[in-house]
Amino acid sequence: MPEDTFEQLKVRLRQFATERDWDQFHSPKNLSMALIAEVAELVEHFQWLTEEQSENLSPEKLAEIELELADIQIYLVRLADKLQLELMTAVEKKLALNAQKYPADKVRGSSKKYTEYE
Amino acid sequence: MPEDTFEQLKVRLRQFATERDWDQFHSPKNLSMALIAEVAELVEHFQWLTEEQSENLSPEKLAEIELELADIQIYLVRLADKLQLELMTAVEKKLALNAQKYPADKVRGSSKKYTEYE
Amino acid sequence: MPEDTFEQLKVRLRQFATERDWDQFHSPKNLSMALIAEVAELVEHFQWLTEEQSENLSPEKLAEIELELADIQIYLVRLADKLQLELMTAVEKKLALNAQKYPADKVRGSSKKYTEYE
Amino acid sequence: MPEDTFEQLKVRLRQFATERDWDQFHSPKNLSMALIAEVAELVEHFQWLTEEQSENLSPEKLAEIELELADIQIYLVRLADKLQLELMTAVEKKLALNAQKYPADKVRGSSKKYTEYE
Repeated sequence: MPEDTFEQLKVRLRQFATERDWDQFHSPKNLSMALIAEVAELVEHFQWLTEEQSENLSPEKLAEIELELADIQIYLVRLADKLQLELMTAVEKKLALNAQKYPADKVRGSSKKYTEYE
Repeated sequence: MPEDTFEQLKVRLRQFATERDWDQFHSPKNLSMALIAEVAELVEHFQWLTEEQSENLSPEKLAEIELELADIQIYLVRLADKLQLELMTAVEKKLALNAQKYPADKVRGSSKKYTEYE
Repeated sequence: MPEDTFEQLKVRLRQFATERDWDQFHSPKNLSMALIAEVAELVEHFQWLTEEQSENLSPEKLAEIELELADIQIYLVRLADKLQLELMTAVEKKLALNAQKYPADKVRGSSKKYTEYE
Repeated sequence: MPEDTFEQLKVRLRQFATERDWDQFHSPKNLSMALIAEVAELVEHFQWLTEEQSENLSPEKLAEIELELADIQIYLVRLADKLQLELMTAVEKKLALNAQKYPADKVRGSSKKYTEYE
């Protein structure tokens, strides 16, 4: 799987921070806080909606949510960079673990099992 | 910027969920909750560390955190897919907005300004 | 409204931290991280449940959730103490603001209005 | 320890929700989301501050944070009510467990031990 997307984004975000001298604020600790604050803005969009409503959003709402997803992705790439971790390498490792942990024929379909396997 | 990374990952995660009949649980509302729970596991790693300690993690700690980052990336791609949003398109939109909102010569270096501009 | 409950709890938690020399870790920044990590454990219990299921939990599940609520309350009291804020005073201020912000006859019943008023 | 504070607050919040017909939105699942969104607003206040700065807030900042703490307390009481749990009973149970889990003479002072015991 190509690393290009994350690599290019990483470099652009580095440059953005450097130009603004914001690197000093971007400790992994602080970035984890910024990341969860962004995800919470996403959660806020969904908190009073039913699951069904969350699947049928207005274009206006969806446009707002799109930018929240972007913020999460941006901070995630930034954090991985500061920790010198490669997101795609991490994802490949986790997917391999998940395939072992949740064999399809064992966990299929039951929410009870799904929850337990979590 | 190539869409390939996200596109390929999206397809693999779809397949993983389908094989396990987990699609029924993956409403955007539910995925936003799973996403924030994963980010919180990350925050937990950093909560009692100083900022400096968070920049100098042991290999063992870093290996754990790598998998947390993976979980966040996985749920983020999954959520974008369910909302039929493209993560890289979203990121491009947000970066353009950020460049306007935080002109480098105006916000450089001051944490006070940084916070206010947030 | 009596302050006793929070006051007594505050003193007990102070003593617990002092006896363990944990005060050094309890900066407001760190406590806010610990607090959100605890709330995320709560969210995790509910993430794959329907709203209806979340209203009909098993006694075992409820016993686990009870302890999560306790953790949240404990960190909240601890954080208020470190910031020298009184929780009940804060709540009274907020309830007065909410009564103004959401007049019953204006916001009644519609989820749309509710969300907008948020 | 007196239950009065929580009991009285519980009744007032019930009435507030009933008058606005908001009870329909207050499933435990939804309230857990609202709760974490409020805590995230708190985290946001601290994310770019050093620990020391978080201990020396301006009166303006402190006044904002006071209202965030109130929101968290309000949703916590509301959630406990919907689950028919008593917050102080929960706290007493948890404090008893914590006293066993973290004996003062065993965990004193070391952040390493503290983290491990967590």
